[in-house]
Amino acid sequence: MDERNLYLILQPESRTSGARPFRGVHHALVLLGIAIMLASTVEGLRDEWELALDVGFWLVAGFFVFEYVLRLIASAAAPGAEHIGAWRARLRWVASPSGIYDLVCALAGLAALSQQHAVSLLASLWIFKLVRYSAGLASLRRVISRARSALMSVLLGFMIVLLVAGSLAYLLEREANPKDFGSIPAALWWAIVTLTTTGYGDVVPQTGAGRLLAGCVMISGILVFALWAGILATGYAEETRRREFLRTWELVANVPFFHSIGASLIAEVARLLRPHDHPSGSVIMRRGERGDCMYFIADGEVEIQLSNPVTLGAGHFFGELALLTRAPRNATVVTVRPSTLLTLDIADFHELLGHQPELARAIREEAVRRVGTPVQSAADALPETALSDRPA
Amino acid sequence: MDERNLYLILQPESRTSGARPFRGVHHALVLLGIAIMLASTVEGLRDEWELALDVGFWLVAGFFVFEYVLRLIASAAAPGAEHIGAWRARLRWVASPSGIYDLVCALAGLAALSQQHAVSLLASLWIFKLVRYSAGLASLRRVISRARSALMSVLLGFMIVLLVAGSLAYLLEREANPKDFGSIPAALWWAIVTLTTTGYGDVVPQTGAGRLLAGCVMISGILVFALWAGILATGYAEETRRREFLRTWELVANVPFFHSIGASLIAEVARLLRPHDHPSGSVIMRRGERGDCMYFIADGEVEIQLSNPVTLGAGHFFGELALLTRAPRNATVVTVRPSTLLTLDIADFHELLGHQPELARAIREEAVRRVGTPVQSAADALPETALSDRPA
Amino acid sequence: MDERNLYLILQPESRTSGARPFRGVHHALVLLGIAIMLASTVEGLRDEWELALDVGFWLVAGFFVFEYVLRLIASAAAPGAEHIGAWRARLRWVASPSGIYDLVCALAGLAALSQQHAVSLLASLWIFKLVRYSAGLASLRRVISRARSALMSVLLGFMIVLLVAGSLAYLLEREANPKDFGSIPAALWWAIVTLTTTGYGDVVPQTGAGRLLAGCVMISGILVFALWAGILATGYAEETRRREFLRTWELVANVPFFHSIGASLIAEVARLLRPHDHPSGSVIMRRGERGDCMYFIADGEVEIQLSNPVTLGAGHFFGELALLTRAPRNATVVTVRPSTLLTLDIADFHELLGHQPELARAIREEAVRRVGTPVQSAADALPETALSDRPA
Amino acid sequence: MDERNLYLILQPESRTSGARPFRGVHHALVLLGIAIMLASTVEGLRDEWELALDVGFWLVAGFFVFEYVLRLIASAAAPGAEHIGAWRARLRWVASPSGIYDLVCALAGLAALSQQHAVSLLASLWIFKLVRYSAGLASLRRVISRARSALMSVLLGFMIVLLVAGSLAYLLEREANPKDFGSIPAALWWAIVTLTTTGYGDVVPQTGAGRLLAGCVMISGILVFALWAGILATGYAEETRRREFLRTWELVANVPFFHSIGASLIAEVARLLRPHDHPSGSVIMRRGERGDCMYFIADGEVEIQLSNPVTLGAGHFFGELALLTRAPRNATVVTVRPSTLLTLDIADFHELLGHQPELARAIREEAVRRVGTPVQSAADALPETALSDRPA
Repeated sequence: MDERNLYLILQPESRTSGARPFRGVHHALVLLGIAIMLASTVEGLRDEWELALDVGFWLVAGFFVFEYVLRLIASAAAPGAEHIGAWRARLRWVASPSGIYDLVCALAGLAALSQQHAVSLLASLWIFKLVRYSAGLASLRRVISRARSALMSVLLGFMIVLLVAGSLAYLLEREANPKDFGSIPAALWWAIVTLTTTGYGDVVPQTGAGRLLAGCVMISGILVFALWAGILATGYAEETRRREFLRTWELVANVPFFHSIGASLIAEVARLLRPHDHPSGSVIMRRGERGDCMYFIADGEVEIQLSNPVTLGAGHFFGELALLTRAPRNATVVTVRPSTLLTLDIADFHELLGHQPELARAIREEAVRRVGTPVQSAADALPETALSDRPA
Repeated sequence: MDERNLYLILQPESRTSGARPFRGVHHALVLLGIAIMLASTVEGLRDEWELALDVGFWLVAGFFVFEYVLRLIASAAAPGAEHIGAWRARLRWVASPSGIYDLVCALAGLAALSQQHAVSLLASLWIFKLVRYSAGLASLRRVISRARSALMSVLLGFMIVLLVAGSLAYLLEREANPKDFGSIPAALWWAIVTLTTTGYGDVVPQTGAGRLLAGCVMISGILVFALWAGILATGYAEETRRREFLRTWELVANVPFFHSIGASLIAEVARLLRPHDHPSGSVIMRRGERGDCMYFIADGEVEIQLSNPVTLGAGHFFGELALLTRAPRNATVVTVRPSTLLTLDIADFHELLGHQPELARAIREEAVRRVGTPVQSAADALPETALSDRPA
Repeated sequence: MDERNLYLILQPESRTSGARPFRGVHHALVLLGIAIMLASTVEGLRDEWELALDVGFWLVAGFFVFEYVLRLIASAAAPGAEHIGAWRARLRWVASPSGIYDLVCALAGLAALSQQHAVSLLASLWIFKLVRYSAGLASLRRVISRARSALMSVLLGFMIVLLVAGSLAYLLEREANPKDFGSIPAALWWAIVTLTTTGYGDVVPQTGAGRLLAGCVMISGILVFALWAGILATGYAEETRRREFLRTWELVANVPFFHSIGASLIAEVARLLRPHDHPSGSVIMRRGERGDCMYFIADGEVEIQLSNPVTLGAGHFFGELALLTRAPRNATVVTVRPSTLLTLDIADFHELLGHQPELARAIREEAVRRVGTPVQSAADALPETALSDRPA
Repeated sequence: MDERNLYLILQPESRTSGARPFRGVHHALVLLGIAIMLASTVEGLRDEWELALDVGFWLVAGFFVFEYVLRLIASAAAPGAEHIGAWRARLRWVASPSGIYDLVCALAGLAALSQQHAVSLLASLWIFKLVRYSAGLASLRRVISRARSALMSVLLGFMIVLLVAGSLAYLLEREANPKDFGSIPAALWWAIVTLTTTGYGDVVPQTGAGRLLAGCVMISGILVFALWAGILATGYAEETRRREFLRTWELVANVPFFHSIGASLIAEVARLLRPHDHPSGSVIMRRGERGDCMYFIADGEVEIQLSNPVTLGAGHFFGELALLTRAPRNATVVTVRPSTLLTLDIADFHELLGHQPELARAIREEAVRRVGTPVQSAADALPETALSDRPA
């Protein structure tokens, strides 16, 4: 196996043969490693299963050393490596955060033996291995990083409230409750437990004024919660819009049907479509159901199950007839290969057709061609449901 | 009663005669069944009311067997059944998740007798019967399912924070608090109670470093909350837009007035209108009140209560005069049959009129026809409030 | 004083002379009444201050009887009353929810004497008097009522999780913890305290399985929170948009400048403007500050403080020069009467000018007339800051 | 150093030489002061480190007196001061909230000596010094202030629920639990701890009815949370949009490329661009990476690292080629001075190009000039990736 193949297998979201099994083993061993770490801190379990835990631990630790070597070899095929040569590319990877992290994980196994106390920290380190494979976490990280300054401002406000609350609680409760509020740092422990509305209940104000203060702190806590939620909701909505557009825009380029509608429309269409991956043999729509979207095939192949079945490949669309005529689906459609379909919702379908007369005509002409009789405009056609029982 | 009728009666949201009483009995028996389950786990109640509880239990269990048979018969009229025949349609239902669930519910009554411990689980099963009838839950499920990958990413982040927090707490608190932090699994219990800001208070860190860690964990908890809230807010806003559009778009087709404005406008109008169902005899607007919306009748009939009352049926509109002239409502309007009205808010009314001169003219002409004198453009007419005391 | 005047005084948000003092007395007595109720349940206070509490109580109770009579008289001037006569209008009010509520409040004073236990409930009743005067609560109520079906769906989901969690906890914890989990109702108490992340800590699962379940319940609790937050955020954004538009749209009609721009633009402009009330003598902008918005006077009068001050009344605008030239404010502007100003933000200002060449020309011409020299287009003028030291 | 320079140094976000060191010292001393305050309330620390704490305290207190004098001198150069003279400008600052606050901070050092109890409050006062330097907090304050009336309405609703819950709990729990629910004020303490879902657990209802009430109160608490989150999310989204537009709009004026596209487009473009500051030597994009945005240089200078490197200054753009051709980045770009770049996301890039044919042509022509061969329209070019290995 050459470096290029190895590199592809190790990439997250890679579809190369071998990539999926590798990920399966990798994830299983990460989880196994964590489970062993957890178990080996429980006295009863540790004594009884000592051998099994040790064997499992060496298995996991060995795998991470093996993975480190694989990644080191593969990094010679990283993008940009062809300009700097294989060994400089490998050195760059070794010095990169990713390379250092993998080295620490690999070395962690040895460390665990010599020093019992650090064992629990290793379990924590290994779980970060999963982060690399989660596309969602990457986009959450982008959301948080973009909203960083706003989140930090809320945190500063949080700290101010905390300090003021702690100081006031110290003044108000010091005499009634010298054990729990005997110093400001002690009062701050109460304040943070209250401000986050955690409320352990180990420290509770006793005086009337202290309880009034506690009420205000709790309400401030809700406000902090709400501010953060508001900031992240705003950021997440934007990030979602951006990520979905990017993916859809690339897929739209594979549907020749859209080439004819002109560059200026592509961006608008891409904003409305929604990509979904389907494994082979999954039922996309079922005869007799009510239709609420149409589909464009970006990749793969589907079979329309009629008396003489039709197969459609990438670039075709189906399901538009039920939207135009409001009749139930007139055929069941099943994927015959793993396929990526672009879904156009009925709401967006009609809005798009309203805005784009040429697109409307193109889709309607294709529908007519399929059923053999004219289909009226979306609005006019509504009261009629006569076009069913034909392939959509 | 034939299968078709039976099928319609059993459908959620069905308006067939018989459907509403069936739902009433069904929901009441589900709640009764749950109440009996709850009561029979309380020792005092169980002993004292044994007979009543047993009778009630058999009644509920019997009903679910009866319902299973009904659904089995009715499934011969399910959509698509005409192509495969009644018995194959029934078999398909028996094998569907819905059929299996109903069978389990029906058999649960018997199981409950033989094995006391499982009794409480049955109560939980029966409550899912209500899910089938809740359109709102279905759309929430769609929101959650669409946001699944983002929610799972947050959950992965949650797990990572949990593991790191548990491991650190184990290191920091192990010596000060060997009972509660003696192993990582024990420390994880503290971590989840803290990270979700539940804060039972049964386990509380004692060292300064442990409390600092606890503060960070609580703040991370708020962040997780906020991320989830942001993700779901984004998803829910989109799902709402979609569901409302679908319903409105279908209703708009029943208002002939909109047919004249052309297909390209239908989608825009449907986005602004908001459907509401009103029972017979409900007061839609009251003479003398300030008007902040107009109404299109999608279905049903209303009476405009003037000296000589006027009745308007599906396809007509009313209430536009108060929006055009800013005068108070000049008549009370009451539904005479259960009606579905499409509401157009004053904000959207004026925006729509600004964008769509033809629609503005059509509405204004109708208003003029009703009051007998010209009505000026929305903006010019504002300072004048002279057109009241006539039917709107 | 006639009924019409009385009616106006009693209306919330009324600006009639007398309305503000009435509201002051009303709110003060409501708060006093509540404070007395609270105090009279504290044993020490009740015994020591008995006379003062009794006198205060009779004062408040007497006022509510008096208010009831006032409202009864005034209801003859309610909208629509002229069509049905004064006494029928009063009867209608007596039978309305508002009338019944006021009667109960008035009678509550008497009830409080006879039966000590109900006293605390009265305090709760009186606070609802404040609801009538809060425009914000009314719009929150509208948000909640519109989102009702979605909120109820979440509540149903909440109940299902609750029941399942309670049943499972009963099965898992019954033996380890028979006191707290001895029946499902008892387990439900634990479940709700956990699902809402309140976490009193009076009931805590002891077994490993029970704690795993508790973790899942807490995470579900966060999800419920997040769903509700998402639903209400969506609803609130829409309601805000609607309410602000309504208010602004009415005010825009008072600015003659906008009449010239045509009806179709009014709605767009109204969406961008933001109304603010300013008391007499408040400083709107200060010479030398950076300008980030311009102002239209919907109502009132302002003075531009130059060497020879200029007074502008309703219908004029000011502050546009700093937006066009990016120079600091060249004059201080102060209201000379209570005024309502419509604020146009710099972001919206430039967007509006980009979209609307005629509006841009009109504002620029006025600016030129004021400074005596041509002002360039918004974009071209940016690098130049030469136009200051003249009235804006 | 003259007053003008001093004024600039003291301004938050000032970039004058001297401003950054001043801020560093200022923030460090604020934090030191707070740390000393905290430490001096802990008995053990206070006794052992008395001298060090006293010296540190006098250092911080002295600095705040010094800062007060500096600000007093500098206020003669505040905006608008040239019209009223230096001493009147200083008097105005002394009487302003900012001046009074700084005086209190300066005097606080003396007060701390005489009266031990007030010490903790001073720590709280000093932390507000940081607020002045946080641009984020200012914009959060604006969000909260704009949403003030809505937040207050929720607070009123919160108070009503609180009072009703407290009264009912008093009625229901008084007999079972006279110590904790013996008066309404005592019950209110339980109610607020429950309504905010803090749940200390020091007071817990014992009766079935009381627990049912507690469940309802908890659910109401979630609703309050959710309402606040919704309100603030709406407000924050708007404020973000406004602040970003303002900054971007000013930067866009420095990019001559945009001058040619006409004033009406500036606002639309400014809405899509996103400014980022980069220190000298930071890598903007790396050869071989996938490109997902292009950059306009608003300020500073970048080097495109090719065989013969190219330097681009303010007003130029780069990175557009990877967006047009979908090829990987063909060069690494590094800033050579601190630079402000405007980022145009790929999603917005294609939407903008779709809407604005002239802009599309301008960018494409520049791209062609760079690579020497024609680049096709965004959509047509997608399947081709032949244009790489040239400067972007």
